Amino acid sequence: MMETLDIPSGERAIARCAELGRAPYSDMEGGLFRPYLGPAYRATCEKLSQWMAQAGMSTRMDAAGNLVGRYEGLVPNAPVVLLGSHIDSVRDGGFYDGMLGVILSIETVAYFARAGKRFPFALEVIGFGDEEGSRFPTGMLTSHAVAGVLKAPDPAMPDWAGTTTLAGALEGFGLDVGRMHAASRKGDPVVAYVEAHIEQGPALEAEERPLGVVSAIAAQQRYSLVLRGMAGHAGTVAMALRRDALAGAAEIILAAERVGRAGTDGLVATVGSLDVVPGAANVVPGEVVMSLDVRAGTNAARDMAVAEILDIARQICRARGLEIDMTLKQDLDATPCDARLTALMEQAAGSVTGMPAPLLVSGAGHDAMIMAHLVPVSMLFIRCAGGISHNPAEAVTQADTEAALRTMTTFTGLLERHFG
Amino acid sequence: MMETLDIPSGERAIARCAELGRAPYSDMEGGLFRPYLGPAYRATCEKLSQWMAQAGMSTRMDAAGNLVGRYEGLVPNAPVVLLGSHIDSVRDGGFYDGMLGVILSIETVAYFARAGKRFPFALEVIGFGDEEGSRFPTGMLTSHAVAGVLKAPDPAMPDWAGTTTLAGALEGFGLDVGRMHAASRKGDPVVAYVEAHIEQGPALEAEERPLGVVSAIAAQQRYSLVLRGMAGHAGTVAMALRRDALAGAAEIILAAERVGRAGTDGLVATVGSLDVVPGAANVVPGEVVMSLDVRAGTNAARDMAVAEILDIARQICRARGLEIDMTLKQDLDATPCDARLTALMEQAAGSVTGMPAPLLVSGAGHDAMIMAHLVPVSMLFIRCAGGISHNPAEAVTQADTEAALRTMTTFTGLLERHFG
Repeated sequence: MMETLDIPSGERAIARCAELGRAPYSDMEGGLFRPYLGPAYRATCEKLSQWMAQAGMSTRMDAAGNLVGRYEGLVPNAPVVLLGSHIDSVRDGGFYDGMLGVILSIETVAYFARAGKRFPFALEVIGFGDEEGSRFPTGMLTSHAVAGVLKAPDPAMPDWAGTTTLAGALEGFGLDVGRMHAASRKGDPVVAYVEAHIEQGPALEAEERPLGVVSAIAAQQRYSLVLRGMAGHAGTVAMALRRDALAGAAEIILAAERVGRAGTDGLVATVGSLDVVPGAANVVPGEVVMSLDVRAGTNAARDMAVAEILDIARQICRARGLEIDMTLKQDLDATPCDARLTALMEQAAGSVTGMPAPLLVSGAGHDAMIMAHLVPVSMLFIRCAGGISHNPAEAVTQADTEAALRTMTTFTGLLERHFG
Repeated sequence: MMETLDIPSGERAIARCAELGRAPYSDMEGGLFRPYLGPAYRATCEKLSQWMAQAGMSTRMDAAGNLVGRYEGLVPNAPVVLLGSHIDSVRDGGFYDGMLGVILSIETVAYFARAGKRFPFALEVIGFGDEEGSRFPTGMLTSHAVAGVLKAPDPAMPDWAGTTTLAGALEGFGLDVGRMHAASRKGDPVVAYVEAHIEQGPALEAEERPLGVVSAIAAQQRYSLVLRGMAGHAGTVAMALRRDALAGAAEIILAAERVGRAGTDGLVATVGSLDVVPGAANVVPGEVVMSLDVRAGTNAARDMAVAEILDIARQICRARGLEIDMTLKQDLDATPCDARLTALMEQAAGSVTGMPAPLLVSGAGHDAMIMAHLVPVSMLFIRCAGGISHNPAEAVTQADTEAALRTMTTFTGLLERHFG
């Protein structure tokens, strides 16, 4: 740590994220990769524990490998307000995805610890171990455990490198895969989960706002569409005789875009992957396998858009003599953030920045989505450069980060009044 | 050979193609693969040589590994009419692509040999060794040699299996890569090249005609288009803020289809390959690499269509904020078949089938395209089931094959009058 950064600040939060972006806090040369329960994960938890301790917290690792720091309330066994985000990162990721939320949570506590301020609730900071599916074919595994909604994971699931299993990786941290569910806070007096996170999208930048407040985490459906026409020689099959699967797919892509653009409630529709069979320049495409991902702030808006796109897709295929198969691959309900907490977060952000904070639908999933099964949740979004995430080019400004920290402390203060 | 098939016929031609569709005439278990200069190629040349000899021909292998049979004319050193097609096949190909033309040429000579008929010209049957690029990264290598337009090939070019080089493969047949050009017939009294071939497209089937006559082999241009937009999270980037490379590609695909459909002169436009980067369901496509293949019976028709499609593509990309790079990958002029020979072939097919034979543009390339550098060429197309080729499902009917054989013999007779 630089000596000058001895008080909690946006500047220090950024410096800490950057410090954690390289060895020993990364398992990758020349970039950041911090998979769940890897060597970098261990080093990061140790460093975070030091910072938590400096901020007046006691620390522990829970049964799912999450790092938890606790700053006691005015009384023992007080209700708990959980602040946090995730520690793990994607391969060659950025410094701020997840980690900025963890660090800002620590800075929030450090701010109050420095002031000697305690609340009628305890503040706990949680760094989730697996949000990204960074090591195992999972995702949000450890928030499922904390929320008490973990379905027994396969102890033998191999990691991406094939070098160990989930059970083995946990064992390396002295943990037991059969007891992951013991991380559950069900029955504990947890009253809220609050997560700060970079936006990972360009809306705040486009609106020139440093901060946004999340109204809901989007409802999502993902389909795999398979279109089958007839492959043929690109030189010998006359246009009128073709059943070109890719031309049909092209119409569907544009229909999805049209429906997405016409929608409200944060509706987005994306064809992100598309494979052509056989995929040669001189062969009329006989088959296309493509994804369709539709998200919106409410289930109703998403369902209406999906129904419309799939209906158009069927019509397109009928008109072109193509077969179409549609398989639902993912189906997630919308997760509304808690209305009262959201109102407090808007109030906090507005008073800090002097302008209204936009209410956003989070199109990306977050641990908050899972934690909503346990407690009311609130999320604060921080503007990031170009909306870029999952990329070394992730960037936030010092001013925005400072505003985020002050919003978190202001929010905590409002929460106290709310408790009063 | 079955004993009953002792006279030249469509039935025998089909039986011979089928016989050559399995070991030892194929280098692949359970299917046909007859690469240039492989073991199956050697066995096939031996069997074809027997059939040529039975049809009264002397046989030789030329300096490029092509098999040539000669049926003398009325006088020594008479002009030569070359009949033929290619011996090699794609991997897991059909029985008839190339080989039917070779066999029908032998049957044509057998027909005249049986009748004791000789012409003022010699008939030679040529089986080309490499048309498909079946073994080396080439294509029509051996007709280039015969036509006298071979550019020195790389002796060290490896075959697909990486087990030998072009020089090594030729050496196995007692041939010298440095002397391939000696297969050239430049200066020889060759007066025509005539090729029968399955259509490899669905036009004859759609028009309910057994035979077609080729007016020209299509002009072709192939481009690689690279569209660059901005990748982003499929959940977090609002529709209005996207620069989706795949949505742009979709518009271009439909524009190419529209231009192709509106064209004449056998115009076809195809996007056959398309790759999305990064190609994940939850990421807005940042880059697309796609092919564009445009063919038509005349250079002018092709050029007009290419210019129109590329112009629309530029407009689409401009409107969507996408960059576009266009690289010309292949540029082949149209090869008109000889007008006089084509008229004779139409006359022959018409008299045999009792109906006009459609004049077709061949969208696929053929050895005739290369041989046109040397001599006037004519091509006869034979209807094939479903237009399917390069596939074990290739099929022709006995009646159509019989009609093709009779058209070839009638054509040869007309040629004699033409010579008179």
